[in-house]
Amino acid sequence: MADDRENGERVIHVPLGERAYDILIGEGLIARAGGEISTRIKGRKAAIITDEHVGALYLEPLMDSLQADGIETVSLSLPAGEKTKSFDHLQKVCDVLLEARIERNDTVIALGGGVIGDLTGFAAGIVRRGVRFVQMPTSLLSQVDSSVGGKTGINTRHGKNLVGIFNQPDLVLADTGVLNSLSPREFRAGYAEVAKYGLIDQPDFFAWLEKNWREVFSGGAARTEAIARSCQAKADVVVADERENGRRALLNLGHTFGHALEAATQYDSARLVHGEGVAIGMVLAHEFSARLNLASPDDGKRVEAHLRAVGLPTRLSDIEGELPPPHILLDAMAQDKKVKAGKLTFILTHGIGQSFVADDVPPSEVLSFLTDKMASANI
Amino acid sequence: MADDRENGERVIHVPLGERAYDILIGEGLIARAGGEISTRIKGRKAAIITDEHVGALYLEPLMDSLQADGIETVSLSLPAGEKTKSFDHLQKVCDVLLEARIERNDTVIALGGGVIGDLTGFAAGIVRRGVRFVQMPTSLLSQVDSSVGGKTGINTRHGKNLVGIFNQPDLVLADTGVLNSLSPREFRAGYAEVAKYGLIDQPDFFAWLEKNWREVFSGGAARTEAIARSCQAKADVVVADERENGRRALLNLGHTFGHALEAATQYDSARLVHGEGVAIGMVLAHEFSARLNLASPDDGKRVEAHLRAVGLPTRLSDIEGELPPPHILLDAMAQDKKVKAGKLTFILTHGIGQSFVADDVPPSEVLSFLTDKMASANI
Ligand SMILES: NC(=O)c1ccc[n+]([C@@H]2O[C@H](COP(=O)([O-])OP(=O)(O)OC[C@H]3O[C@@H](n4cnc5c(N)ncnc54)[C@H](O)[C@@H]3O)[C@@H](O)[C@H]2O)c1
Ligand SMILES: NC(=O)c1ccc[n+]([C@@H]2O[C@H](COP(=O)([O-])OP(=O)(O)OC[C@H]3O[C@@H](n4cnc5c(N)ncnc54)[C@H](O)[C@@H]3O)[C@@H](O)[C@H]2O)c1
Ligand SMILES: [Zn+2]
Ligand SMILES: [Zn+2]
Repeated sequence: MADDRENGERVIHVPLGERAYDILIGEGLIARAGGEISTRIKGRKAAIITDEHVGALYLEPLMDSLQADGIETVSLSLPAGEKTKSFDHLQKVCDVLLEARIERNDTVIALGGGVIGDLTGFAAGIVRRGVRFVQMPTSLLSQVDSSVGGKTGINTRHGKNLVGIFNQPDLVLADTGVLNSLSPREFRAGYAEVAKYGLIDQPDFFAWLEKNWREVFSGGAARTEAIARSCQAKADVVVADERENGRRALLNLGHTFGHALEAATQYDSARLVHGEGVAIGMVLAHEFSARLNLASPDDGKRVEAHLRAVGLPTRLSDIEGELPPPHILLDAMAQDKKVKAGKLTFILTHGIGQSFVADDVPPSEVLSFLTDKMASANI
Repeated sequence: MADDRENGERVIHVPLGERAYDILIGEGLIARAGGEISTRIKGRKAAIITDEHVGALYLEPLMDSLQADGIETVSLSLPAGEKTKSFDHLQKVCDVLLEARIERNDTVIALGGGVIGDLTGFAAGIVRRGVRFVQMPTSLLSQVDSSVGGKTGINTRHGKNLVGIFNQPDLVLADTGVLNSLSPREFRAGYAEVAKYGLIDQPDFFAWLEKNWREVFSGGAARTEAIARSCQAKADVVVADERENGRRALLNLGHTFGHALEAATQYDSARLVHGEGVAIGMVLAHEFSARLNLASPDDGKRVEAHLRAVGLPTRLSDIEGELPPPHILLDAMAQDKKVKAGKLTFILTHGIGQSFVADDVPPSEVLSFLTDKMASANI
């Protein structure tokens, strides 16, 4: 499914029948966007939704590229940050798309991280019951995770991503060069998701990362390779289970804990960003599995050692400020989507690269685990 | 596909693969709702969304029926009327569903006319990226049209239904008895859609209606028959073309004009309700077709005579108050969804029961038709 172009660009095809699409990964794709889009999509109009950080850097080159290929563009730049994934901004984006008279064969482009991708993909899927949609992920997290798979949505006061739709993009253009302007902290956060694919079912990829992570951080071929492997892994899972009824849940490794921590820190990115929550969550998932005698405690230690080496937080005590008590964290997990008839769905593991879905985890087990964790000197 | 039960109830199966569902049509279905839902849907929770008119009459019996079958219920009653199909109310409904912790296998029930059905179906499709959804249409229009086919959505300041999704219900329960409390005006408005199915491609059904419309209005077997035939007609089109790329557009007979008139009257139901706009629109579509030498003027006269006999408005001059000038009406049509590269998509006809999709109607033709219409003494 993966394919190499001469310029080192990688192409991953996601074979989803009438919703099939390509993911292009490589340096300089923003400058080549007009060509890639105009050969695939009929409409001659595009609306670019971005955030203020990304827009300041890449909006102009992208508009130039589109206009050079005869695509008329409008753009909207929203505040950066998780709070932008709201009903108010959804309404705003829809309004701008309708104002611009974007029709079914015109294109809506998400230029930004996962926040912009999730919000824009949702809006593109509901305006006129769906217009064309291109993901141009600019953070590492969005390149390896959120831009692939079609989940889109917004947050509500009840929790993250509780309102949204499945909306597969028509094309994903991941320019690996733009990651050079990403803050090291955001890069690390995205890296947590890269490591996740190794931990789910590719122990060799995890071992490769333990050896090559410095090259991934510095750019070039190793970075492209890590992103392509991650996209391929995610695409494989999505193809096997588009609507998240079974196998796709594996992608939530570290996420049930992670989302609870994000909620507990009020989605305040100064304290915790998504990938950091996932990093801590993956360590907790390995430790919780060890406590349930499913995995060796050594695996948890190896996971923690690698994530800590790249500079990610791995413990609850790495989070600045106070955390709510365990039962509040548990409550946040129960309001999370992955709940079936009162039991929690958790991704547990038998060891590195041996994760599995457990949909019958008693909340009481989680509560006592968290209580011990938070009470121990270790937290 | 249609099926008869002993009590005179009709069952229409809509074979949409994994999105297949049944439409049940008959008297007393509200009282039998608990049984029908609990045999089909696992979750033991239901949220009923209704409007204040319908809720006052039917919410209690419905809740009783659900509770008798062991389904825990919450409810939300919204203001009646088209203005409820808004972003604000969408957000409110989502909030209530999340507050009630409706999970994927729980049920959201739309109890009301098309307004409640469209809004609720949209909310049910985006909360947790989709929970179970049951349509219980209570207006004639919603029983024969909006509850079947999966189109859901809200209005924006740019026009009607411009934001929404395709979300097929899991079940439709159309209690024909509740139509007795519908105002005669609303009944007539729904009847316009019934007549539409005859005009699209069933001249025999149109002739049957010309003979039997009084029985349809008064209730009993003829009413059930007319509703079942309408649902079957709509279901057939939807199955042939779920996402509205071709044939499904036929259902828009009378609607391009109709929507423009609704916009022109600010969706003020005191002046015009949807079905009334459609009635006038269908007459205009026949007249416009005759003007283009596609149909005989006699067909337009026969359509107008029947719709007028049942008490529907059929002319622009039947609308109280002033209408905007032709070019504003045209502009409203162009902002309507059915636009491809500057040409209008219109449903035209070769005569009664011989409608077809024309996707290359020059706006100038429409403009001169409307200009003449509005200038003539006839309007
Ligand atoms: N849809 C999915 O399947 C999925 C999967 C995982 C995560 N998510 C969502 O993704 C979001 C997190 O994504 P994120 O980490 O990309 O967050 P983000 O979009 O907030 O981006 C992080 C920060 O980096 C900045 N940034 C992005 N690209 C940059 C660049 N090239 N140069 C400089 N600055 C840049 C942004 O402006 C922002 O300040 C969360 O809302 C999460 O729920 C969705
Ligand atoms: N989704 C679709 O495919 C589709 C198709 C056609 C129309 N629509 C939409 O449907 C809407 C119009 O539907 P509608 O005409 O049902 O409007 P509506 O929902 O506003 O109902 C009309 C009025 O009748 C009242 N009412 C409904 N049932 C009643 C009953 N049994 N007894 C007493 N009063 C009752 C309502 O409270 C309301 O005041 C429009 O928004 C239109 O866009 C959608
Ligand atoms: Zn994630
Ligand atoms: Zn209609």
